[in-house]
Amino acid sequence: MAENEKLMFASDYMEGAHPEILRRLAETNMCKSVGYGFDEYTASAKEKIRRACGAPEADVFFLAGGTQTNATVIDALLRSWQGVIAAETGHIAVHEAGAIEFGGHKVLTLPSRNGKLTAGEIEAFARSWQQDENRDHTVMPGVVYLSQPTEYGTLYSLEELRAIRGVCSGFGLALYVDGARLAYALACPENDVTLRDLAELCDVFYIGGTKCGALFGEAVVIPRHGLIPHFFTVIKQHGALLAKGRIAGIQFETLFTDGLYSEIGHSAIVAADRIREALTEKGYRQAFRSPTNQIFLLLEKEQAAALSGKVEMGFWENTEDGHTVMRIATSWATSAEDVDRLIEIL
Amino acid sequence: MAENEKLMFASDYMEGAHPEILRRLAETNMCKSVGYGFDEYTASAKEKIRRACGAPEADVFFLAGGTQTNATVIDALLRSWQGVIAAETGHIAVHEAGAIEFGGHKVLTLPSRNGKLTAGEIEAFARSWQQDENRDHTVMPGVVYLSQPTEYGTLYSLEELRAIRGVCSGFGLALYVDGARLAYALACPENDVTLRDLAELCDVFYIGGTKCGALFGEAVVIPRHGLIPHFFTVIKQHGALLAKGRIAGIQFETLFTDGLYSEIGHSAIVAADRIREALTEKGYRQAFRSPTNQIFLLLEKEQAAALSGKVEMGFWENTEDGHTVMRIATSWATSAEDVDRLIEIL
Amino acid sequence: MAENEKLMFASDYMEGAHPEILRRLAETNMCKSVGYGFDEYTASAKEKIRRACGAPEADVFFLAGGTQTNATVIDALLRSWQGVIAAETGHIAVHEAGAIEFGGHKVLTLPSRNGKLTAGEIEAFARSWQQDENRDHTVMPGVVYLSQPTEYGTLYSLEELRAIRGVCSGFGLALYVDGARLAYALACPENDVTLRDLAELCDVFYIGGTKCGALFGEAVVIPRHGLIPHFFTVIKQHGALLAKGRIAGIQFETLFTDGLYSEIGHSAIVAADRIREALTEKGYRQAFRSPTNQIFLLLEKEQAAALSGKVEMGFWENTEDGHTVMRIATSWATSAEDVDRLIEIL
Amino acid sequence: MAENEKLMFASDYMEGAHPEILRRLAETNMCKSVGYGFDEYTASAKEKIRRACGAPEADVFFLAGGTQTNATVIDALLRSWQGVIAAETGHIAVHEAGAIEFGGHKVLTLPSRNGKLTAGEIEAFARSWQQDENRDHTVMPGVVYLSQPTEYGTLYSLEELRAIRGVCSGFGLALYVDGARLAYALACPENDVTLRDLAELCDVFYIGGTKCGALFGEAVVIPRHGLIPHFFTVIKQHGALLAKGRIAGIQFETLFTDGLYSEIGHSAIVAADRIREALTEKGYRQAFRSPTNQIFLLLEKEQAAALSGKVEMGFWENTEDGHTVMRIATSWATSAEDVDRLIEIL
Repeated sequence: MAENEKLMFASDYMEGAHPEILRRLAETNMCKSVGYGFDEYTASAKEKIRRACGAPEADVFFLAGGTQTNATVIDALLRSWQGVIAAETGHIAVHEAGAIEFGGHKVLTLPSRNGKLTAGEIEAFARSWQQDENRDHTVMPGVVYLSQPTEYGTLYSLEELRAIRGVCSGFGLALYVDGARLAYALACPENDVTLRDLAELCDVFYIGGTKCGALFGEAVVIPRHGLIPHFFTVIKQHGALLAKGRIAGIQFETLFTDGLYSEIGHSAIVAADRIREALTEKGYRQAFRSPTNQIFLLLEKEQAAALSGKVEMGFWENTEDGHTVMRIATSWATSAEDVDRLIEIL
Repeated sequence: MAENEKLMFASDYMEGAHPEILRRLAETNMCKSVGYGFDEYTASAKEKIRRACGAPEADVFFLAGGTQTNATVIDALLRSWQGVIAAETGHIAVHEAGAIEFGGHKVLTLPSRNGKLTAGEIEAFARSWQQDENRDHTVMPGVVYLSQPTEYGTLYSLEELRAIRGVCSGFGLALYVDGARLAYALACPENDVTLRDLAELCDVFYIGGTKCGALFGEAVVIPRHGLIPHFFTVIKQHGALLAKGRIAGIQFETLFTDGLYSEIGHSAIVAADRIREALTEKGYRQAFRSPTNQIFLLLEKEQAAALSGKVEMGFWENTEDGHTVMRIATSWATSAEDVDRLIEIL
Repeated sequence: MAENEKLMFASDYMEGAHPEILRRLAETNMCKSVGYGFDEYTASAKEKIRRACGAPEADVFFLAGGTQTNATVIDALLRSWQGVIAAETGHIAVHEAGAIEFGGHKVLTLPSRNGKLTAGEIEAFARSWQQDENRDHTVMPGVVYLSQPTEYGTLYSLEELRAIRGVCSGFGLALYVDGARLAYALACPENDVTLRDLAELCDVFYIGGTKCGALFGEAVVIPRHGLIPHFFTVIKQHGALLAKGRIAGIQFETLFTDGLYSEIGHSAIVAADRIREALTEKGYRQAFRSPTNQIFLLLEKEQAAALSGKVEMGFWENTEDGHTVMRIATSWATSAEDVDRLIEIL
Repeated sequence: MAENEKLMFASDYMEGAHPEILRRLAETNMCKSVGYGFDEYTASAKEKIRRACGAPEADVFFLAGGTQTNATVIDALLRSWQGVIAAETGHIAVHEAGAIEFGGHKVLTLPSRNGKLTAGEIEAFARSWQQDENRDHTVMPGVVYLSQPTEYGTLYSLEELRAIRGVCSGFGLALYVDGARLAYALACPENDVTLRDLAELCDVFYIGGTKCGALFGEAVVIPRHGLIPHFFTVIKQHGALLAKGRIAGIQFETLFTDGLYSEIGHSAIVAADRIREALTEKGYRQAFRSPTNQIFLLLEKEQAAALSGKVEMGFWENTEDGHTVMRIATSWATSAEDVDRLIEIL
């Protein structure tokens, strides 16, 4: 990068793929295989994911992107008269252009704190639906959608997740976790939710590839085999079936070989922690505490403008009291040099 | 390949990508860019496609796969009360798991000959709808869907396509061409429909990548700028927006640099022609004439079984008179050695 | 009717309601009741229908019209990856403006003879789906849709219906019968399918009101209680829930009191039989044999034009050999005088 | 009514129809007419409504019920990438079982005060969408949905409605008003919004029949002819087309003859005003001010229980401070005697 170029910290999907993935794609490139995910690379990737999740019976499917995965899974989990509970800040509620509604389902939003829902709020909502005399004129909640980490970089603790699972079981709700940035949660020192925990607690969750080192791809894990009948056809119907399924398979096989997925998460968290430390030292304020690979700076407008000239960050929002929140995201590709330069600029 | 391994001629998507694509992905891998197709690689790919199509104003979008592209484009072209005319053998009518209906639209099927529709049949159907006293109780045709080459490897001539365009214009129908295997049409000696012709005649068409040398990806071309409003959002709503849009952009930039897309088509046709010649010499029958990269062998049952032990082909259908139709497909990746061996086996 | 007015035989829904229904609506008009079908009139109507069907456990719901009923029931019976098998002449395939597809489902059409499907054709289709290697890329058949009588006025015999039921059971298909004109089937001398038979053989069927003497309304019968969960909500979601449910309830209570539904069917058949007899005597040809309240005249074009000047009939189709098919429909409201005058004109 | 029976004030659709409607249905019952709303009664009803609205060019359609009307109109007004703005208490947001989402569209809810939205809030929302950098990843607002009177019995003033119209025009939003109880707004002394105002300000609105004296039926008014293309087919596709269209036509013709619609509204308001006066005298509290035919009593729990034993009211909600809100609704059918008895009980 030339000296006069801007530093890029706007998102965690600004590069291609982790070099090891490219290497493996090149290595296997001319081997012939059948399509639609019935190849041996995909089989191996599924097996490695089952093992990492301690879920030997799990159904695993690879889709191309997050919105597609959310729309397909949620549509498959819901019956026509049901809707999905989500935080009002949840990705499916805001930034998926109505993909859930396109599939015919309502997103039932609850207020959130820094991207998170609580077991108590979900329970109150489910109970209030149950006790509503007019409930048969309304949309029945059928699925709870969470993100781990959330869109605000925050984490559910194991205790919180268990409590939510308890509510779900009590009210017949399926629990679905969006893990678009799961690597960055798993690698976070204060995280206590493992892949095995997710496999134990969720009806479905996905392990994000696109934002965690792959060219593209998300791995849908359904721990209980057969929970979703005809899911292959549902995926096809949603336009989400990859003809060359192996391309996703090879990527996830690579991510789950020799700890690469952990390593990817780890390096991003190390970079983010260094930045957070520098921010604290230099007296910057953060909009809220986020321990993963996203940092939300609370800046004066002039400060924001000045910084933006030198660092490409993500615009998050303008607060009511006149501040600007900007997002810094690190990834597997963030170099120590870029972190050094960023700290210097700060 | 070991001597005792079966020859693979089952489909045209059994490998990764053309090596030049992988090389270019590796070369650009660590360059940072913004997401969702606003990067410079994608911009360059769009420009190269516009030039190849002689359509400087065209809108170009990159999606991940064929079913997704068909569902998204057709949904965007139709109003809620309209349906899409297709051959009863058309991909959208048969092998997309109801993706068009999932989007709320009826596929209005017409009988086809070897995968093709005629202008006359389309006109008869459109006129009969227009003259139907009860037409307001029925689905209005809004789009004509063709495949070039068709699912049966056959081709529309320029004359045929012009005639269909004429009918479409006369009846207010949009014309959409599915080019999943377009490279193999363009490279075919007897083909007289160029990219420029498609850009002149179609409202929308797509240039296939997945089956023509890319890891994945289809390039949607809308020659008349602005024909489909808010198409970016429609793509997102269908779960078809790639976060790392550059991955598709880089692939198509490569395919449309130094004639690679033509070269890919050409080598597959050369291979298919050699096989066709050998078939004729040895007295094999073909189910029908197909000049592109797909060959449809009409075999006795025992013949089919014997061959299948040595060559992996695609099963197509059992005919009513007890024969079996098997498909042989060549691609950019078919080696001269494999063709030699296949001819030897035949 | 003035002497110079045209006779009206165009359809079976040209009047208001059977006078007894209006009388009963007036009688109960100022009695207060709760909404949405929880009133005592509706309860009584349901009970009378259960008794008439010999199905004491049946769930019964009242909807407003035929297309609405078909779309709601079929959507409730299908899962998202499934479609409905219908004759290519079936109402849902042709004259419902794509209402089934609007709900996300494909209509899988089979050729029909005079409106009817055969068990053999359904079985062949279901088996061919089952044996298709690519079936997971296609729409799975989930429901068989029949009309009794058909759109062509023809009837399924008990034997035919039992054979179809057998195929449905063998292939896991639900059987749904559209009884928009059921009264005219039940009253037909050659019919041998009773309400009890329908309740025994169908998963769901509906007893038509709109075309059989009511102002509007169709009674959906689900013989096996609980087969469709949350059907009340599905009805509401389809916009098909009547706020003043009693208006439908009172009408069906009246239709199923003192044999009124039978009487309505009977008088229409008597009228149709008289007309059929006269047609035969006078040498008219019928396009095909239809024993219920619809008669399909095969006319020379000039003959059709001449008749149309004196009698309002329904235009059905132009045959390929230059004839015109016109439909005569009788109903509960057809008077002996009108039949006399029609015969005279013929 | 027997002395010991409960008084019924639970809703405004507890009876059949205004007697004049029944009389007219009986009078026309045996006249023959064509179906689907092409009869002379429907033509006359449309003309009378056009005159009452001062909108000689208006398109008018008759549908069966409110949810159906909302789902059909909103789906027809929106393009696939758009959603509808509504109060979070709006009928479409709460009590229509997800009918809007079933049609593929998101309901974009805004906080409301006693059922109402303000021009300012709508403008803020529309502007915030417009200024959102990520707006192409979100659902674009396309329609504003209001109810007049609202679900809480409150009214928009002409000034408020004009302001909202101004915002709609400024942001390219269509304005749609749900008039399920419109008669009770029009008859309210403090109302200053006439049918002519609605026709001037709305893109579409509907004049409620079901809750205002009809057996069923809502009249959709589209003041600008041709605004919604193919609306007849859209209605059919939604299962909302009445085969015997005349039944709705005759009812609305009656409602708009000799001021019956006004009279119906007037008598309900007189009754409600008498009750309101008595409530004030006796020291009862109302949850909020509602000037139309619905009254919302704020009761202690014991008080609510005691009253409920004698008067059937609608349960509305439990407030956070332990009170119960019960709804009293009057209608065209509320007798002076019932009002007397209610006041006595109070």
